[in-house]
Amino acid sequence: MDIRDVLEAYKQDKISPEDAEKLLRMDYLERIGQDCVLDRSRSMRKGIPEVVYGAPKTPDKVAEICASRPGSLLLVSKAGRDHFEAVRKKVPDAEFREDCGIIVVGKMPEPVKGLIGIITAGTSDVPVAEEAAVMAEAMGVKVMKYYDVGVAGLHRISEPVKELIEADADAIVVVAGMEGALPTLVSSMSTSPVIGVPTSTGYGAGGKGEAALLCMLQTCSPGLTAVNIDNGIGGGGMAALIANRRSERKSQSNK
Amino acid sequence: MDIRDVLEAYKQDKISPEDAEKLLRMDYLERIGQDCVLDRSRSMRKGIPEVVYGAPKTPDKVAEICASRPGSLLLVSKAGRDHFEAVRKKVPDAEFREDCGIIVVGKMPEPVKGLIGIITAGTSDVPVAEEAAVMAEAMGVKVMKYYDVGVAGLHRISEPVKELIEADADAIVVVAGMEGALPTLVSSMSTSPVIGVPTSTGYGAGGKGEAALLCMLQTCSPGLTAVNIDNGIGGGGMAALIANRRSERKSQSNK
Amino acid sequence: MDIRDVLEAYKQDKISPEDAEKLLRMDYLERIGQDCVLDRSRSMRKGIPEVVYGAPKTPDKVAEICASRPGSLLLVSKAGRDHFEAVRKKVPDAEFREDCGIIVVGKMPEPVKGLIGIITAGTSDVPVAEEAAVMAEAMGVKVMKYYDVGVAGLHRISEPVKELIEADADAIVVVAGMEGALPTLVSSMSTSPVIGVPTSTGYGAGGKGEAALLCMLQTCSPGLTAVNIDNGIGGGGMAALIANRRSERKSQSNK
Amino acid sequence: MDIRDVLEAYKQDKISPEDAEKLLRMDYLERIGQDCVLDRSRSMRKGIPEVVYGAPKTPDKVAEICASRPGSLLLVSKAGRDHFEAVRKKVPDAEFREDCGIIVVGKMPEPVKGLIGIITAGTSDVPVAEEAAVMAEAMGVKVMKYYDVGVAGLHRISEPVKELIEADADAIVVVAGMEGALPTLVSSMSTSPVIGVPTSTGYGAGGKGEAALLCMLQTCSPGLTAVNIDNGIGGGGMAALIANRRSERKSQSNK
Amino acid sequence: MDIRDVLEAYKQDKISPEDAEKLLRMDYLERIGQDCVLDRSRSMRKGIPEVVYGAPKTPDKVAEICASRPGSLLLVSKAGRDHFEAVRKKVPDAEFREDCGIIVVGKMPEPVKGLIGIITAGTSDVPVAEEAAVMAEAMGVKVMKYYDVGVAGLHRISEPVKELIEADADAIVVVAGMEGALPTLVSSMSTSPVIGVPTSTGYGAGGKGEAALLCMLQTCSPGLTAVNIDNGIGGGGMAALIANRRSERKSQSNK
Amino acid sequence: MDIRDVLEAYKQDKISPEDAEKLLRMDYLERIGQDCVLDRSRSMRKGIPEVVYGAPKTPDKVAEICASRPGSLLLVSKAGRDHFEAVRKKVPDAEFREDCGIIVVGKMPEPVKGLIGIITAGTSDVPVAEEAAVMAEAMGVKVMKYYDVGVAGLHRISEPVKELIEADADAIVVVAGMEGALPTLVSSMSTSPVIGVPTSTGYGAGGKGEAALLCMLQTCSPGLTAVNIDNGIGGGGMAALIANRRSERKSQSNK
Amino acid sequence: MDIRDVLEAYKQDKISPEDAEKLLRMDYLERIGQDCVLDRSRSMRKGIPEVVYGAPKTPDKVAEICASRPGSLLLVSKAGRDHFEAVRKKVPDAEFREDCGIIVVGKMPEPVKGLIGIITAGTSDVPVAEEAAVMAEAMGVKVMKYYDVGVAGLHRISEPVKELIEADADAIVVVAGMEGALPTLVSSMSTSPVIGVPTSTGYGAGGKGEAALLCMLQTCSPGLTAVNIDNGIGGGGMAALIANRRSERKSQSNK
Amino acid sequence: MDIRDVLEAYKQDKISPEDAEKLLRMDYLERIGQDCVLDRSRSMRKGIPEVVYGAPKTPDKVAEICASRPGSLLLVSKAGRDHFEAVRKKVPDAEFREDCGIIVVGKMPEPVKGLIGIITAGTSDVPVAEEAAVMAEAMGVKVMKYYDVGVAGLHRISEPVKELIEADADAIVVVAGMEGALPTLVSSMSTSPVIGVPTSTGYGAGGKGEAALLCMLQTCSPGLTAVNIDNGIGGGGMAALIANRRSERKSQSNK
Repeated sequence: MDIRDVLEAYKQDKISPEDAEKLLRMDYLERIGQDCVLDRSRSMRKGIPEVVYGAPKTPDKVAEICASRPGSLLLVSKAGRDHFEAVRKKVPDAEFREDCGIIVVGKMPEPVKGLIGIITAGTSDVPVAEEAAVMAEAMGVKVMKYYDVGVAGLHRISEPVKELIEADADAIVVVAGMEGALPTLVSSMSTSPVIGVPTSTGYGAGGKGEAALLCMLQTCSPGLTAVNIDNGIGGGGMAALIANRRSERKSQSNK
Repeated sequence: MDIRDVLEAYKQDKISPEDAEKLLRMDYLERIGQDCVLDRSRSMRKGIPEVVYGAPKTPDKVAEICASRPGSLLLVSKAGRDHFEAVRKKVPDAEFREDCGIIVVGKMPEPVKGLIGIITAGTSDVPVAEEAAVMAEAMGVKVMKYYDVGVAGLHRISEPVKELIEADADAIVVVAGMEGALPTLVSSMSTSPVIGVPTSTGYGAGGKGEAALLCMLQTCSPGLTAVNIDNGIGGGGMAALIANRRSERKSQSNK
Repeated sequence: MDIRDVLEAYKQDKISPEDAEKLLRMDYLERIGQDCVLDRSRSMRKGIPEVVYGAPKTPDKVAEICASRPGSLLLVSKAGRDHFEAVRKKVPDAEFREDCGIIVVGKMPEPVKGLIGIITAGTSDVPVAEEAAVMAEAMGVKVMKYYDVGVAGLHRISEPVKELIEADADAIVVVAGMEGALPTLVSSMSTSPVIGVPTSTGYGAGGKGEAALLCMLQTCSPGLTAVNIDNGIGGGGMAALIANRRSERKSQSNK
Repeated sequence: MDIRDVLEAYKQDKISPEDAEKLLRMDYLERIGQDCVLDRSRSMRKGIPEVVYGAPKTPDKVAEICASRPGSLLLVSKAGRDHFEAVRKKVPDAEFREDCGIIVVGKMPEPVKGLIGIITAGTSDVPVAEEAAVMAEAMGVKVMKYYDVGVAGLHRISEPVKELIEADADAIVVVAGMEGALPTLVSSMSTSPVIGVPTSTGYGAGGKGEAALLCMLQTCSPGLTAVNIDNGIGGGGMAALIANRRSERKSQSNK
Repeated sequence: MDIRDVLEAYKQDKISPEDAEKLLRMDYLERIGQDCVLDRSRSMRKGIPEVVYGAPKTPDKVAEICASRPGSLLLVSKAGRDHFEAVRKKVPDAEFREDCGIIVVGKMPEPVKGLIGIITAGTSDVPVAEEAAVMAEAMGVKVMKYYDVGVAGLHRISEPVKELIEADADAIVVVAGMEGALPTLVSSMSTSPVIGVPTSTGYGAGGKGEAALLCMLQTCSPGLTAVNIDNGIGGGGMAALIANRRSERKSQSNK
Repeated sequence: MDIRDVLEAYKQDKISPEDAEKLLRMDYLERIGQDCVLDRSRSMRKGIPEVVYGAPKTPDKVAEICASRPGSLLLVSKAGRDHFEAVRKKVPDAEFREDCGIIVVGKMPEPVKGLIGIITAGTSDVPVAEEAAVMAEAMGVKVMKYYDVGVAGLHRISEPVKELIEADADAIVVVAGMEGALPTLVSSMSTSPVIGVPTSTGYGAGGKGEAALLCMLQTCSPGLTAVNIDNGIGGGGMAALIANRRSERKSQSNK
Repeated sequence: MDIRDVLEAYKQDKISPEDAEKLLRMDYLERIGQDCVLDRSRSMRKGIPEVVYGAPKTPDKVAEICASRPGSLLLVSKAGRDHFEAVRKKVPDAEFREDCGIIVVGKMPEPVKGLIGIITAGTSDVPVAEEAAVMAEAMGVKVMKYYDVGVAGLHRISEPVKELIEADADAIVVVAGMEGALPTLVSSMSTSPVIGVPTSTGYGAGGKGEAALLCMLQTCSPGLTAVNIDNGIGGGGMAALIANRRSERKSQSNK
Repeated sequence: MDIRDVLEAYKQDKISPEDAEKLLRMDYLERIGQDCVLDRSRSMRKGIPEVVYGAPKTPDKVAEICASRPGSLLLVSKAGRDHFEAVRKKVPDAEFREDCGIIVVGKMPEPVKGLIGIITAGTSDVPVAEEAAVMAEAMGVKVMKYYDVGVAGLHRISEPVKELIEADADAIVVVAGMEGALPTLVSSMSTSPVIGVPTSTGYGAGGKGEAALLCMLQTCSPGLTAVNIDNGIGGGGMAALIANRRSERKSQSNK
């Protein structure tokens, strides 16, 4: 019942003034609700799965949340084996990506749309990179991975960049701890938008990812933005969103 | 003259072996010079103009740099009137965008390609937003601006987001100081990738942009990444890069 | 015109359905505009005037904002004399409270409702205390002021606290820089809720209000909360809101 | 025996001058002991129970403190099961609220007076919210709880706020980690004073509650103040104090 | 009128019960006042002059304070020439120690009691050292000064330390910026208690006194404590207090 | 052999020029060594025992050090039971003060000289206070202890201060975590020099002793200096040094 | 095949234009690869072994890396016994330097070239010093070690410095935690370049090596540079590089 | 007159024993004065001129210091034109290197010994680089300068590195602000020891050199150490010391 309907119903005395006011108020509240979405089908197309931050929750709480979303894809991030054991009891076909601590509940989509690259500086950065990869795959995006390319050996950097340019990667996620200079280097070589993900590798002053994050924020490369330390979900999600929207444009224009 | 041209010219004895080698080497150096981009035409299409960080340089130094790039588009950021006076003496048709402290040297392109939105929380954030806008326009991207939408008045946020969704904006730059919650809100309402630009508005604990930056890094919205405090160039540049690459895809597939 | 008025006017054919819908929509937008407050009369009773943060804005911008709100009470905080000069040209009867840098545009209400106390540790804290006082007065609250009571002389603290208890103060704002221990002491002596406002007085380690803020946050007194450093507006506003709602309750129950 | 009683007893020679002086001195010391509160009955009405910070104490020390306060209500916060085991041996009817780590010694009052709301952003914030709830309940205040309302889904925020406005809640405690934007949003929608409680949820830059706290301090909403990270006791205590004093006013004026 | 007097007066019906209670309550308040002093003559003997922190106050405010303490010794610290000009108008015989920014109001005592040494690492530390010296002299203590002894030239350190040991200095104030290692070295060589005063000399990481302060806090020398950065008043005051109390003991035992 | 002896020996050809130079050089080196002491007997009178920081050392290393100092008094601080077990094997009569983690090797002196007070804010501060007490006792100083006096209950503070003034305590060590306001209060009430020892009690912003330390550094009381967080050794050592030197003065003058 | 060869081959139609272009491009890529080395034999002479940062890697990952470098010298730093157990299974003759947590894979060179000194302030700094020593020895440099020389006893410092000057040490690594003043002292006494290595010994404000690092950075000695906290590898590596290059010069010129 | 000369003179009765002892003592004091350097000729060869930190000193103080060192080379760093004007009045032939704020008093040595390279990332880093260059030249070292090589254009980095390798540079100073990645890149390409000098270029999070410094500390390149932000003197001095000692070795072995 929209505003006009209410007005008519009231005019024709089909509803009391109290009911008319209440209905108009409810319409108002509904709109606030819609303010956050505005276009549900668009929101759907955005294709970002629900992500539950597992670390600070008890295994039971995580399991309860997972069991309450039947049919939809849901990721639990920063999860441990204990979280997974609890989830599996309630959602038997849940999967555990132990290398990055993600529990996958529901069916992963086919990688039919965009393409992103994920590059890491060292082997210690791989778990965060894998988190980004699972997130992107959960959004239907194909991932090309180049792990442990270092920062000193420049040719080890130029090789994956060249491949990603040739594959026309929609975006590149660069995962690096320590001094975090790799995203700047990749961004200077590549034509794709680069998402820098600092990791908590490193010690002493600037350790735990601080130097890496600051380095990415201080970069003068205009095609590089950053997410928080160890936030593979955020980095993979942004890259996949860029990829999906670029692919979508392609499909639209192909028609 | 590209590689094939050199090969042909050499085969037909139009150039000496010395010249051929020199041309190929120059081509090689030029390529490295173009930030290791392996495909010049792509690099060109990336269309990022040179940006000189003006603040720490003397007016004379800035003028000298501007005068040395005839014919190409160049922006001087965080520039003051004294920088501009010095530049104008050497490059008479340079322009000064005083509201955001950018000196524009060379001809701005026509806005024919992508479309981005720029939203600010308050009026104090406008100079940084304008910096982002000039950068994006320098990359050939059209900008829709919504300034001073606040964080408290939710409908003031939902209106511009709705318009940007309807215009299919390629990316949204959200500029905010103080507590910096606006980018998270916009990202939760919109389907576009959002680039958060914290500004140095605010005082006391977390002032000078610190709270705003941390807020954007701590966000749980997977479609939001951040650049450094007051870095309008970085925010506008990333948004424009996403926009140009998405538009390019469209044009390609239209053929 | 509220919802019922619109409904009646429409029912009696005094307005067209288009106008009725438009009025209701405007009502809806207005409501969202009023910070999503669901009941306008309540919002009014909240009685918080608009506050514009003056420091980062140009005098012209501030004057323009002031001129655009005829009839309503508006405060410009952290303003300088140059802001005031610009405002006075457009709003001749604007007032400047130079001791706390607030420009008052519009008519201050009569102090008929609640009562709060404002205590400062030193004379350097007075400008922030005055900012809190003006804010509270702008919300119709009476203010009892005790400035420069120190932290060492305990009897200098107990006197004002006794007076405020006897006056049944609705809330107490305690403004302190340096080590910021005064709010904790006042809170331990008083029965009123205490709002601590750290000030940027102090130097060296923990200077600029940092130690004062941390001290207030580390307090073990459960009747003490804090606002940001130098945020007299926030401290005075919170105290006045508590006062007004407590007084309102009194008036209601008196009926 | 209060002052008048002593005076009468002395006048009627029921007590020696020595005893009279001693009793008056003891009264004096007692009063100072009651945290310098000048009016014992007021102090009583304030109704804040003793709270012992359990975490840094040994179980034996905690048990000893609990056993020494027979008859009065006492809370041990941030307590573990080992603390509780030790306490139970000495105070058999002590209770353990394991979800928020509080040991309750003594009898909780009936919820007859004020009413507050407690809202959390996520499920990880619940333990701190429960701490606030137990504290408020220990002060005789009724609590309406809305947990896990998020920050992105605005309608999920507006629903509880509407209910709390309709229930005329005396104050609202908003508990949030990560970017901590929820208290600002609630404050902008509600007419009640809002106490923000940042939690140590979150990681990387601004993690462990830092971003959340700074966000609450940087807010421009004048009806919002903050307590320290994870300080549910402080947040609940302040809200309950505001509620009790507002209710008290009501009761007084009813007479 | 003490407690017994009140009791008697009441017993003999010379005063009403209201007056008796009121008198007893006043007695109570007076005691709180006395709680801070307990023994006025002792407090006097402590001999610390009032110190007003000038920097954050207006010249007029400072002058007003100075004029209100006729007869007693008062120091205004971190004062500028403008403060002094304003003070001199009201207190013509005030003196300005420009090298350390202290205004002296009233008569300095004769240096008859203790003896302290003040050592600085560099010439940049001299203003803070002079602040300490004036404070100590205002407390009647003699000061031996050794400025610019460096940290590298060890004999330049050992010479003054030897002299101070021979003079049986009661305490040594060591003023140092940069890396702040001098107090540790002096403490390891000397037998006197050492008060370290870090100064805001230095730049870059750890500059503005941070490294110096941390160095003094991290020292493993058990005869060294610190005051805040640039706090010459605090350093000189503590050293003079130790000196005066040690000398006082001497005088007492001499009798 | 001093300089003159060498000169003579050389002149009389008793030693070669090589030997003369070498002897003079050795004399020089010896002096550098002496530069650090200058007067060994004075150093002895200072009476500070050797303190070994146990925490970062292995039990075996600690035991080895303890065994190498037969006959002299030595304290191992921040030691665990494992350290003690290892020490006891080599030094059977070593003692373990488990409440403050100090291993005592050698014989504690009789408390014949000075007198200090040690006050703590809470029970959590007791281990650090005990560390200070053991250190002072190891320096032959008597200790009066007042633990858990709080910060809110002012009479609980004034009682011990009064007793310490009456006992003419040479110095007072005040140990406090959380907001750390107690040393400032004690210093304002007492006439003794006060050494503030912040403890790592507390959580959230300013936790782990940071707020307490900053509060002590920001204090405006000129008779208060600070040592690092949890540094009971430093606080007790400084207080005992002041006490011993003041007592020594007394004894000297008594002769 | 270099550029000329390709040009000739193409001119003589031995290769297609496609192949010519491809070969030239490959040449270009190879050069980028070579850009990082430029002269492989020089790189070899630099003699820095590969160092794998063990701490953040799983034992299996570390073992896999070690097994993949047969014949070359490789160090695993910050390794635990579990890492070593895993490595030994694959590389039976690997060695574990447990005192500094380094696994040595391959044969250490003979110490035939340079000479460096390593000095530590305390015994807690020894593991980091040993890390530096192993690194230097792995680069063929001889190491003279002086551990636990303290900072207070100046003659304990001058002895090792004298010996190192006499041995003409090429560089000195000084390892210190706490206040970190030792490197400055050594640098002021010695003629060798000094590398300061702060260690994470220390607690409270400036603990975990922060004060030590800042102290080394704030030093005014121009012959001292620093590496990160606990970075023995970096300190030892730099010193050994200086030593090798200085020795190499010697050998060259001897010819 | 060295030790042997004194011995001889005394033996031959040319000087009295008093004079001999006095001369030897003076020699001793002089030696200690020379920063405890045990071999004066070595100290001389170290060739580090005195450097006075000008910024925090008044022009008069600086001039006074300069005038007091006739004949020796002295640099005043971070000096302004006002410092120079004051110096010139007393030392007419003093020179001002305005581009780096250094006043040179005395005669610069001929560049006959070592060779170092100085590379900067941007033009804003040049003043700090020039400071390093003047310091090195004051130590008799030749400097090859490569300014503004950027971080993105890798060939712009590889060219100077190649030249410096070919010139067998003794050390390389790399000066960089912003993200500070250049020293790591140069170190990975070069065989020389690299001294990283972070500069205060940059803004927002990690600005003022913080990110650059942390990046250099977090580097995994073992041939790179750092000095403090903007410390050109330190960087240039360390590089020159390495160079001089390497050259010296060469000269020695040439004999």
